[in-house]
Amino acid sequence: MRDVCVLGLGLIGGSVLRAAVAAGVPAWGASGTSSAAAATADGYDVDTTAGALRRAADRDALVVLAVPLTATEQVLRQIAAVAPRCRLTDVVSVKAPVADLVRRLLPDARYVGGHPMAGTAESGWPAGSATLFRDAAWVVLTENHLDGELREVWLDVVQLALDTGAHVVPVSAADHDAAVARISHLPHVLAAVLASVGADGGPLALALAAGSFADATRVAGTNPELVRAMCEGNRSELLAAVDDTLGRLGAARGALASTGSLRATLHDGHRGRLALDAARAANRKRLDVELAAEGAFTQLAELGGRGGRIVALDGSIAAVDVPA
Amino acid sequence: MRDVCVLGLGLIGGSVLRAAVAAGVPAWGASGTSSAAAATADGYDVDTTAGALRRAADRDALVVLAVPLTATEQVLRQIAAVAPRCRLTDVVSVKAPVADLVRRLLPDARYVGGHPMAGTAESGWPAGSATLFRDAAWVVLTENHLDGELREVWLDVVQLALDTGAHVVPVSAADHDAAVARISHLPHVLAAVLASVGADGGPLALALAAGSFADATRVAGTNPELVRAMCEGNRSELLAAVDDTLGRLGAARGALASTGSLRATLHDGHRGRLALDAARAANRKRLDVELAAEGAFTQLAELGGRGGRIVALDGSIAAVDVPA
Repeated sequence: MRDVCVLGLGLIGGSVLRAAVAAGVPAWGASGTSSAAAATADGYDVDTTAGALRRAADRDALVVLAVPLTATEQVLRQIAAVAPRCRLTDVVSVKAPVADLVRRLLPDARYVGGHPMAGTAESGWPAGSATLFRDAAWVVLTENHLDGELREVWLDVVQLALDTGAHVVPVSAADHDAAVARISHLPHVLAAVLASVGADGGPLALALAAGSFADATRVAGTNPELVRAMCEGNRSELLAAVDDTLGRLGAARGALASTGSLRATLHDGHRGRLALDAARAANRKRLDVELAAEGAFTQLAELGGRGGRIVALDGSIAAVDVPA
Repeated sequence: MRDVCVLGLGLIGGSVLRAAVAAGVPAWGASGTSSAAAATADGYDVDTTAGALRRAADRDALVVLAVPLTATEQVLRQIAAVAPRCRLTDVVSVKAPVADLVRRLLPDARYVGGHPMAGTAESGWPAGSATLFRDAAWVVLTENHLDGELREVWLDVVQLALDTGAHVVPVSAADHDAAVARISHLPHVLAAVLASVGADGGPLALALAAGSFADATRVAGTNPELVRAMCEGNRSELLAAVDDTLGRLGAARGALASTGSLRATLHDGHRGRLALDAARAANRKRLDVELAAEGAFTQLAELGGRGGRIVALDGSIAAVDVPA
């Protein structure tokens, strides 16, 4: 069981620390914000960033970087000063920019990126919980170059995710960034646009707003600077997703104006939503992947791309549930 | 207490019948679908459409038209054959097209349109409940020409809405249609577009989809033909709302591509969402409106446009809660 050091104790980092402690993992944290005092008051082991990192270096702990993308560079420099060789993962919602920064600022760190797909519209330590990741997907970057020490860190990260109650989706950074642009970053942009168009309707529109509007704009309640960091960090993939949306919405506009029909738009969307429900309800079969085998990580990333998820680690065998 | 005859026993009509009975209102219904048998099995008083309408004519009941917009014309013809002078309201989500049909097919009916702002992604009798309208807004069309017999029907509809636990928002048909385009019809179109763009991301995107995508696409799970009837019936107002959306989303696209910033989009959206929360939490003051007074209905529609709601009727006085 690898010790865990969490840097950043907001919603996600605070939940990682709570969940690790609840699973019996030796874990401590640090935060540059008021979350540090709140976590200490709740009885968690909170140190200065330098102190937390010295302990991480001494114990060869897994360092979990859990600050917004905009603060990543500064924290990576702090790590470089104290624990430049550390085992490192992160929970940032875009992977390519973080990997670039790590390569530049912490070239000797043993880094395997991650991204738990869970959250609420709230932020800060008080919003977190030990059960936030239960039954959630936790992406762990899985590329074919993983070997030696990196493979060990990959196992640390997968084990931490499983310990928090999540299942692990093994994918490449590029596949991750393209997918989350569609199902996380785009929904935030659309929620913001819809909230604006609704509010432009004045007090009457807001008085008549029911579930469809409230649900679809919920994430527009999130701190917009956190959403910016996330969306702007995934610029090129998000642009592609926005362009798909503009194309489909423009087609809907054209059809409604010319023929009066939204048939294609609404039936396509209904099928898309049924596909989500079907993916969640799919029967799954268990596949054991021997991690020491040639091409194992390539196979894992391919299974992840098909909706497969690691649900347990047993020595060097990963148990993967794959849609049947 | 006015008797109530509900035509159409799907989600909304079925809930109106249940709520009216629960409030002690003599009420019966009819339905051309399998909902009729389901409602009968649950112990409700269900008749043929012609039989239900004969009783409505005999008892001068309030007839509640609760079929999709696409079935409205056919049901109005049935009413014309049996109860052409009836007291009539409806629960259809667009008001101008229904008013046009009533004027053409039922010129002698005493008609006051309505629209309860409640629903779920499910449909049919089993999806309904006696508490669906509790604390919901129920629009009752309120125009300055309401007098004599129409004023009586207006009181019937308001009383029915209050009996179901809703509050009444008094507005004109034009204001209603413009508002619901933004906060009900547009969210359905955007949910469909987002569901399509997400599903285009394949199994990995669906495997990573969490709350933001699931909540924002929830209403895409609704029967798309029901959504079509609703959205296509409000074509010109919905076009204006879609154009606003295309404009804002296009601006976001341009900013992201050129400067990399989504600052304006995300902060505007955050303010819009906070405006919804503020409207819901607003302090309210009570205003009594004497319905017999000159200009009372014009005043009510104006109050409704500012977020006012009728919360009680006492004789000829409407108690209106208005944001302070």
